[in-house]
Amino acid sequence: MDHIVVFYPEGKVLEVPEGTTLLEAARQAGVWLDSACGGEGSCGKCKVIVRLGSPHGEASPPAGGLTPQERAEGYVRACQSRVQGDLVVEVPTSSQLGEVKVLSGDIEAEVEKAFPLVDKVCVQLPDARQTPGQSDLERLQAQVLEQRPDLEALSADLEAVRDLPAAARAQGGHVCAALADMEANGRGFSRSRACAGSGEPAPGAARIIAVEPGSRAPVCYGVAVDVGTTTIAAHLMDLQAGQAVSVRGCLNEQIAYGADVISRMVWVEENTDGPGRMQQAVVSTINRLIGQLVVEQGITTEDIYGVACAGNTVMTHFLLGLETAHIRRDPYVPAARAFPIARARDLGLAANPRAPVYCLPCISSYVGGDIAAGVLSTGLADVDQTWMLVDMGTNGEMVIGNREWMVCCSCSAGPAFEGSGIAYGMHASLGAIERAHYDPTADAFSYATIGRVKPRGICGSGLIDALATLLRAGVIDRAGKINLGFASPRVRVRGDQPEFVLVWGHEVGREDDISLCEADIRNLVRAKAAVFAGIAVLLKNLNMAAEALDRILVAGAFGNYLDAENAVTLGLLPDLPLEKIRFVGNSSVAGARMALLSREARRKAELIARAMTNFELSAVSAFMEHYVAGLFLPHTDLSLFPSVASKLRARVS
Amino acid sequence: MDHIVVFYPEGKVLEVPEGTTLLEAARQAGVWLDSACGGEGSCGKCKVIVRLGSPHGEASPPAGGLTPQERAEGYVRACQSRVQGDLVVEVPTSSQLGEVKVLSGDIEAEVEKAFPLVDKVCVQLPDARQTPGQSDLERLQAQVLEQRPDLEALSADLEAVRDLPAAARAQGGHVCAALADMEANGRGFSRSRACAGSGEPAPGAARIIAVEPGSRAPVCYGVAVDVGTTTIAAHLMDLQAGQAVSVRGCLNEQIAYGADVISRMVWVEENTDGPGRMQQAVVSTINRLIGQLVVEQGITTEDIYGVACAGNTVMTHFLLGLETAHIRRDPYVPAARAFPIARARDLGLAANPRAPVYCLPCISSYVGGDIAAGVLSTGLADVDQTWMLVDMGTNGEMVIGNREWMVCCSCSAGPAFEGSGIAYGMHASLGAIERAHYDPTADAFSYATIGRVKPRGICGSGLIDALATLLRAGVIDRAGKINLGFASPRVRVRGDQPEFVLVWGHEVGREDDISLCEADIRNLVRAKAAVFAGIAVLLKNLNMAAEALDRILVAGAFGNYLDAENAVTLGLLPDLPLEKIRFVGNSSVAGARMALLSREARRKAELIARAMTNFELSAVSAFMEHYVAGLFLPHTDLSLFPSVASKLRARVS
Repeated sequence: MDHIVVFYPEGKVLEVPEGTTLLEAARQAGVWLDSACGGEGSCGKCKVIVRLGSPHGEASPPAGGLTPQERAEGYVRACQSRVQGDLVVEVPTSSQLGEVKVLSGDIEAEVEKAFPLVDKVCVQLPDARQTPGQSDLERLQAQVLEQRPDLEALSADLEAVRDLPAAARAQGGHVCAALADMEANGRGFSRSRACAGSGEPAPGAARIIAVEPGSRAPVCYGVAVDVGTTTIAAHLMDLQAGQAVSVRGCLNEQIAYGADVISRMVWVEENTDGPGRMQQAVVSTINRLIGQLVVEQGITTEDIYGVACAGNTVMTHFLLGLETAHIRRDPYVPAARAFPIARARDLGLAANPRAPVYCLPCISSYVGGDIAAGVLSTGLADVDQTWMLVDMGTNGEMVIGNREWMVCCSCSAGPAFEGSGIAYGMHASLGAIERAHYDPTADAFSYATIGRVKPRGICGSGLIDALATLLRAGVIDRAGKINLGFASPRVRVRGDQPEFVLVWGHEVGREDDISLCEADIRNLVRAKAAVFAGIAVLLKNLNMAAEALDRILVAGAFGNYLDAENAVTLGLLPDLPLEKIRFVGNSSVAGARMALLSREARRKAELIARAMTNFELSAVSAFMEHYVAGLFLPHTDLSLFPSVASKLRARVS
Repeated sequence: MDHIVVFYPEGKVLEVPEGTTLLEAARQAGVWLDSACGGEGSCGKCKVIVRLGSPHGEASPPAGGLTPQERAEGYVRACQSRVQGDLVVEVPTSSQLGEVKVLSGDIEAEVEKAFPLVDKVCVQLPDARQTPGQSDLERLQAQVLEQRPDLEALSADLEAVRDLPAAARAQGGHVCAALADMEANGRGFSRSRACAGSGEPAPGAARIIAVEPGSRAPVCYGVAVDVGTTTIAAHLMDLQAGQAVSVRGCLNEQIAYGADVISRMVWVEENTDGPGRMQQAVVSTINRLIGQLVVEQGITTEDIYGVACAGNTVMTHFLLGLETAHIRRDPYVPAARAFPIARARDLGLAANPRAPVYCLPCISSYVGGDIAAGVLSTGLADVDQTWMLVDMGTNGEMVIGNREWMVCCSCSAGPAFEGSGIAYGMHASLGAIERAHYDPTADAFSYATIGRVKPRGICGSGLIDALATLLRAGVIDRAGKINLGFASPRVRVRGDQPEFVLVWGHEVGREDDISLCEADIRNLVRAKAAVFAGIAVLLKNLNMAAEALDRILVAGAFGNYLDAENAVTLGLLPDLPLEKIRFVGNSSVAGARMALLSREARRKAELIARAMTNFELSAVSAFMEHYVAGLFLPHTDLSLFPSVASKLRARVS
């Protein structure tokens, strides 16, 4: 017998047979719920509230996942609840897959009251006879300013003025104007810029970039982009509702020109029209994502009125077509750190040609707009406690600070955590093993893939889980070598290379087995050593112990989660109480989303970038010492990782 | 025997035979001296100072031209001075042909201290090691702001940032930045705009639009354009020296689509891609002029970094590609009165594609940026006295006012004063009769042509002279009819049409005679009646007598002069003491030049446009009464023109 299930706020309706799990029903309806545990009922991430009707299941207190408070509030786990009778199910934003989990509590509120990068304002123009002598533009300007007391001045693009006379008369004077904030960085460099963080907001000015007839604002979308070295994520935002409607991600086509920013900068200099082709590659990647987003949403690229991009300094330079030759040479000078607001047509982006493109400001040649975005979205710059943000992309960047001060640094981690340079590595997309556990007693490797489909490879979070559990099981020793004496058929040698089979191909219908070899482990150990060395040097320079950190925020394109205990086990993060460690997902795109939605956020991003003190690791010999010491698991100096040491000892004993 | 003659400040050197007049020598050297009287020694406009050597001539006090003070200062008339021995001759700006005579005494001073629409600033960037962490853009911004204390904020075009890293390193850190004032109209419409004339200057912001390596500012030119309905004038300005280097003018190609703005607006609506083709026509005309200017100066269009345009409201709309449909329909609403600053590439102008294009603001649908420019350049808005500016283009516009208030109106005069609709009429260019006199006693018609070449036709100032002297001589009666009983072979009938022969063709080697027929006279009388009616209605509405005007400034493309007495004789201007009447030439292009050279001037133009009260003649029945009454020469009511009446009586008696 079939029942009707309604998912809202999405408004998706479908009929499913009795007994279907809500998780499966949601999947069929195209509502993507988070389900990190693979529908086993252990993570609680697929929680929903049933507003009408009563599903079967959830009778006994669940083994994991929901807090007592959540249960009291009516949350159930979608994977454990089965359809009986018709249901209306509310899906909280936090349960949606692909939604970035942002920790700062007041971001939502802040975004609500804000001025998006482009905002549509609809007005009724007075009859021209009532305003003798005034031009169409003046009538429009006066009405918009009346509706928007936050604005002080209102200029207009020539193109918009060209469209205005017809638009002003098409529907009885009802006109909607698209207002762009072209002064996101305060009319550029100003005398007062020296006193960073003064926080005095520049007087509000906006620019009319388009006008359309009508009394109700037509759709107005924006795209927030995380311009990563390895992967690029694009979020389609409804700028009027202030929320994401769809997200997409894929590999950066620039990978063809080098895996990391250094090799790409070299490529640009050595090839004809290098800058042009490099720019073309990133634009083409973003355009592909936008193409998918608009098709999915049933809109056109013309409906995209604004783009906000967060990327590291080199990626931002590539995107804008700026020269990078001097970023990679001592004294490492970028062309700019705060960027002109371009238009989509200047860059060839698949959006309304007039759409402003705002790039989050960079801090130094190797600490970029993605970090400004991360600090913005995590709220690090607002707290009294001292937090650390660690962004593990191809470059590892870390920021320590609070509302009073911020210090940052960057180190080259390589793309291992994004799945590159790993035999079966892949980025965090459909089919990637994002969570894993090896049980030596049963010789069982359990895992969950993104999308809960059959495994295609393994992404960063899965690699960390696999490596940590293999270490604890004794499959791998502290030097990263596979213990060939370990009694399991999974341990084998192919060619010269010892490896460990994670997934037997025959079990999932693939020809080859998914395995992890020693070369993979070496790459991962180097990456984690670089990140930990960066953290150690930064702490040392601040004369701080790791224990003084009130919170560690881990960002990165790992997938949808990161197991803090396993990260500590590997020596990737300091050995702190696990509740201090939080995974914040892609904090870069979260910051780009905020910048897209809120003028205050854009202003704040500029202030954050100016306020941050950059610490140049390349000038510090201590970094190399820490790096080399970090090439053991978890570290040469086990006393730095007492909890890990005790676990490893437990195994041995 | 030949002698060397040097003209400066032009720096032109040539050899000429002894006895050559300095006027002729200047002509051969390409230095164009004004010589309204045709080299007869009567006007004094070709005055120069001989700094080295001593020419022959000028022994006896001249019959006309130079004042005793000018003689005391060493001025001689170039037409009356002949080469003997080598000479160094200084040519004052006022003697150069094509230079617009602007009356306001302090314009020059004001322009000197100003910020041009685009300014080049050269700086030495500090070594990047001295400014750790700063980007190239920040180093440049800091240095420019240091040199330019008038600036508060400095943004940059993406293109300029793209060029910067290479430019910053090409010549040891010596960089010149082209700074554009993109906020000429104060960041657009602002809340404070309502209180016109508050005069509080907006905080100074500039935008870097280009960077070039080098320690000395390379050439930086601008073009000031008078975008007239019938003729277009373009002045090439050296923005660093603050002066014109060359001027050109020609017919507006839009004439193909109609002689006046009304017929052109109709054409635009009735033809496929009307707006595009109309815009193309004016841009093509301006580009042709710019092409001539750059060839003459040996520069390229890329060297033109800024363009300032003054035109009436319709012409400005055509130039910017704005819709004009509602300008010509009640209630006559323009798309805009203050215009976005476009870039040359947006309009297709033959200049550096990044060059800002500033259009002077308009007052109403029929009082345009040419009038704002005229008020700016004549200083009308600065005086305590009450002045009137009359601009006689195809539209006649008049402004009465002073520093406290300004009232303006506009009337359609037709293009007769620009030579259109007149059988032998032509615009004020080479070969046009610009000055004329008929002596009935000798039956002699004497005249001077522009360039002193043989006559090709007659322009506005020549027509006014011819008509007035024919009226005084009794050839024409007060109704504009040719007196067929007048005893002269010049009076004849061709077809049905009585006409008066101005120049016998055989005397100047042309096949036909240059004549003035009754249809021509009718067109001229209608034009002058419209202008005078506009003046009369405006005065009446201010409850002012014409005598209360302290000065009448007459602007227009008449040629290089206008005979005030003749203009009054025809009833074109009120019968005031002649010393109150001044011809100011093309005050529109003079204003555009100021706007190009001075930020203060641009700000002032915007204030002028906002402060002016427009008076709509089309709504006033009194205008038609005054117009009809003005269809006599000088007027139906002779008591309005006592001085003319007494001259006409003198002839009769």
